[in-house]
Amino acid sequence: MARCRTKGGKRMKQMKISEAVVRRLPIYLQFLNELNKREVQTVSSQDLGQRLDLNPAQIRKDLAYFGEFGRKGIGYDVVYLIEKIRQILKLNQTLHVALVGAGNLGHALCNYNMYMNDNMKIMAVFDALPSKIGTHINSLTVRPMQDLKQLVDEHNIRIGIITVPAVEAQNVANQLVEAGVEGILNFAPVILKVPEEVRIHHADFTRELLSLAYYLDYEGEESL
Amino acid sequence: MARCRTKGGKRMKQMKISEAVVRRLPIYLQFLNELNKREVQTVSSQDLGQRLDLNPAQIRKDLAYFGEFGRKGIGYDVVYLIEKIRQILKLNQTLHVALVGAGNLGHALCNYNMYMNDNMKIMAVFDALPSKIGTHINSLTVRPMQDLKQLVDEHNIRIGIITVPAVEAQNVANQLVEAGVEGILNFAPVILKVPEEVRIHHADFTRELLSLAYYLDYEGEESL
Repeated sequence: MARCRTKGGKRMKQMKISEAVVRRLPIYLQFLNELNKREVQTVSSQDLGQRLDLNPAQIRKDLAYFGEFGRKGIGYDVVYLIEKIRQILKLNQTLHVALVGAGNLGHALCNYNMYMNDNMKIMAVFDALPSKIGTHINSLTVRPMQDLKQLVDEHNIRIGIITVPAVEAQNVANQLVEAGVEGILNFAPVILKVPEEVRIHHADFTRELLSLAYYLDYEGEESL
Repeated sequence: MARCRTKGGKRMKQMKISEAVVRRLPIYLQFLNELNKREVQTVSSQDLGQRLDLNPAQIRKDLAYFGEFGRKGIGYDVVYLIEKIRQILKLNQTLHVALVGAGNLGHALCNYNMYMNDNMKIMAVFDALPSKIGTHINSLTVRPMQDLKQLVDEHNIRIGIITVPAVEAQNVANQLVEAGVEGILNFAPVILKVPEEVRIHHADFTRELLSLAYYLDYEGEESL
């Protein structure tokens, strides 16, 4: 599957950036943007670590992947670091996204879209239900699934977001792959199969909730 | 913050289970439940690895934390493994949850709640907007924030889910902490501060989306 391939694959070897690091970069970026809004000019790895609940040594190691841009005793230049991470994540271009599933979650993500960086844009929304087709979410009209391929081509859509019920998710994933998307973000609580060349990430909040519960439940326990 | 503390803290040392392992257990469980529904009786670490995009050696190591229950050449007994993981995650009891923010995402999560295991139950929904208060989401009535403390006590609510806009999230987190929840799952795209004794997990889908984009963008690139 995609994750395995990229781990050992050509691209990762060249860049030598582990998946764990890539997943931390958006977290750094989010906090740095907050600092920048508050006009904070420099930040130390200690401050980053404390705020983000990460080890400062880990942070320095992560950022060192991309060259040395922290200065001892002063820290990292916030604006410079933001620009560097945006560059690494290639956020200076706009990526077009299609969303399948115009339910509550689909609506929430579309609304959310307006607050996101200008580098991600939901260009089209799809649903299989006739009652949903033709309805509006903000400025978008919900389209039938048979328009998927055409709109993916037309808008150069590279990512598909799946917000349909679990039982329909694999079928939708197949259609997205068929339509030519390169990556899928799946919100359905089910594990999907996609071809090797398509990258899939899962955004299943029950996992977060279950692992959160684990820590609560052990509170006060003496041993396993 | 909570994560740092538990990593080095008393509980983690006793259990010797790393956070990474805890986060993988719900993934195993989800797939094992699927296998069980299809009446599959045993599964090898190779099969688990291939389907879940994880290293089989890693899976064996993870499961070995909890004792040896795979058999060479046969694999793991699906039903037994489900029971074992449920036990480890303490899913045989019901955890009560409060949700703050009755918008689209809040609605989606409440609907979703019905499909979840019986071990997590959203007991109350809150919103600050007068127009939302008194409306219904399934069988729940949206309550004003001033009822939070009372209902947390009344229903023994231990987890709070935050689905309010980013600017309100810290204020809501403070109120949840004040009301006595032990854990928070935050969906707002902002980093929240909570006291050490409260555990906070972030379910920010933009992070998944950004790290997904990273891999797409580098497709075909020769080097960093």
